Amino acid sequence: MTYQLYYWDGLQGRGEFIRLALEEAGADYVDVVREPGGMAAMMNIMESRDEACIPFAPPFLKDGDVIVSHVANILFYLGPKLGLAPANEALRYFANGLQLTITDFLAEIHNTHHPIAASLYYEDQKDAAKAYTALFLTERLPKFLGYFERVLQQNPHGDKQIVGDRLSYVDLSLFQVIEGLLYGFPRAMKGYDKKYPGLAAIHAAVRERPNIKRYLASDGRLAFNETGLFRHYPELDEG
Amino acid sequence: MTYQLYYWDGLQGRGEFIRLALEEAGADYVDVVREPGGMAAMMNIMESRDEACIPFAPPFLKDGDVIVSHVANILFYLGPKLGLAPANEALRYFANGLQLTITDFLAEIHNTHHPIAASLYYEDQKDAAKAYTALFLTERLPKFLGYFERVLQQNPHGDKQIVGDRLSYVDLSLFQVIEGLLYGFPRAMKGYDKKYPGLAAIHAAVRERPNIKRYLASDGRLAFNETGLFRHYPELDEG
Repeated sequence: MTYQLYYWDGLQGRGEFIRLALEEAGADYVDVVREPGGMAAMMNIMESRDEACIPFAPPFLKDGDVIVSHVANILFYLGPKLGLAPANEALRYFANGLQLTITDFLAEIHNTHHPIAASLYYEDQKDAAKAYTALFLTERLPKFLGYFERVLQQNPHGDKQIVGDRLSYVDLSLFQVIEGLLYGFPRAMKGYDKKYPGLAAIHAAVRERPNIKRYLASDGRLAFNETGLFRHYPELDEG
Repeated sequence: MTYQLYYWDGLQGRGEFIRLALEEAGADYVDVVREPGGMAAMMNIMESRDEACIPFAPPFLKDGDVIVSHVANILFYLGPKLGLAPANEALRYFANGLQLTITDFLAEIHNTHHPIAASLYYEDQKDAAKAYTALFLTERLPKFLGYFERVLQQNPHGDKQIVGDRLSYVDLSLFQVIEGLLYGFPRAMKGYDKKYPGLAAIHAAVRERPNIKRYLASDGRLAFNETGLFRHYPELDEG
């Protein structure tokens, strides 16, 4: 069965965390909105008046009749099917907890450029964005990265992966988070690999995995841009 | 086995969503931090240098050796054990998606009083809080409540519960969300029961369930206050 991924076209955004898992596993999937008629197909589901399991927002995944929404939920669902979740059940819940910490981190990263409202332009909330980002970079960024580094270092199976003894979707998501932070905050991230060597090693290792490497070089991987989650506004990245 | 819930004392906060599920099911649990030595026990886990599955933040649940963190993850884990999850697997993922939408909603509710940083006092971010809350009340509150009402109305098993044909932890969480919004934004919520009759009916029905009713009247249920997630600042609730 071909998986159907529904997400906005034109940006990596939250959909990218799902794409990376599907690409790593070499799964058969369609990025629906990038196909002809795809946007209408997505809106048909979102606005359906008879579908029971309507999603609040993209991304969502359709697997036959099953609709699963929210990044962490989709990855929790797909993980075992794609061979990207721990075999042990308790560790699967731990992986989900890590992914939900990434979810919270992403919400804060989004708020660096949109602290007042997603419906306002960045330019109309720039002062608040500066105030938010200054504290984000000094307090929150080190707290989140420090936590993930510590979990890596305390993994009894070694620090090559964040949970259990093999690659999981959480490692792929960590790659994407680091990649996005390096794009958005190059100044603040300078020398991050010295402070968080385990995370830097995962970032480098994921990038070299054959399926990921091929995907990153393909047309399927969009460039970061200022409509996405990770944005580069130099004035926010000042010291 | 007695469940151990770890959460800050003195506020309902995110821990309350777990308490409501445990209370409804009549489960055997300890609210660790409210016991003597509980705060030290929680910090021991948070700061452990050898535990593999360290949580980023409370609430977290300990079930024997298993540690599960994040509200939605804890409820996903507990739901089937407490008889508060749908029997059907696809519906369990739908319930998790709904709970994660509640998670996002709660993050925005928190941002109404702390849009710039959790580490700053409300008084030091009051102007941003007013700007945030004005758009939250006109755009986001109706969007979230309208979504949940629509899901209720489109449940093929009827609108007495949001997923499947029986009470789930999602209904209990919706009760708590409505209860908190009525506390925090009494003006903005005025007449909400006319606009969202299904949600209002769930709110009323959950309140009357024997175990919940007993719990709400007990010392275990703390009052809402201005250290929690739902806060009543009249200046934010103006028209």
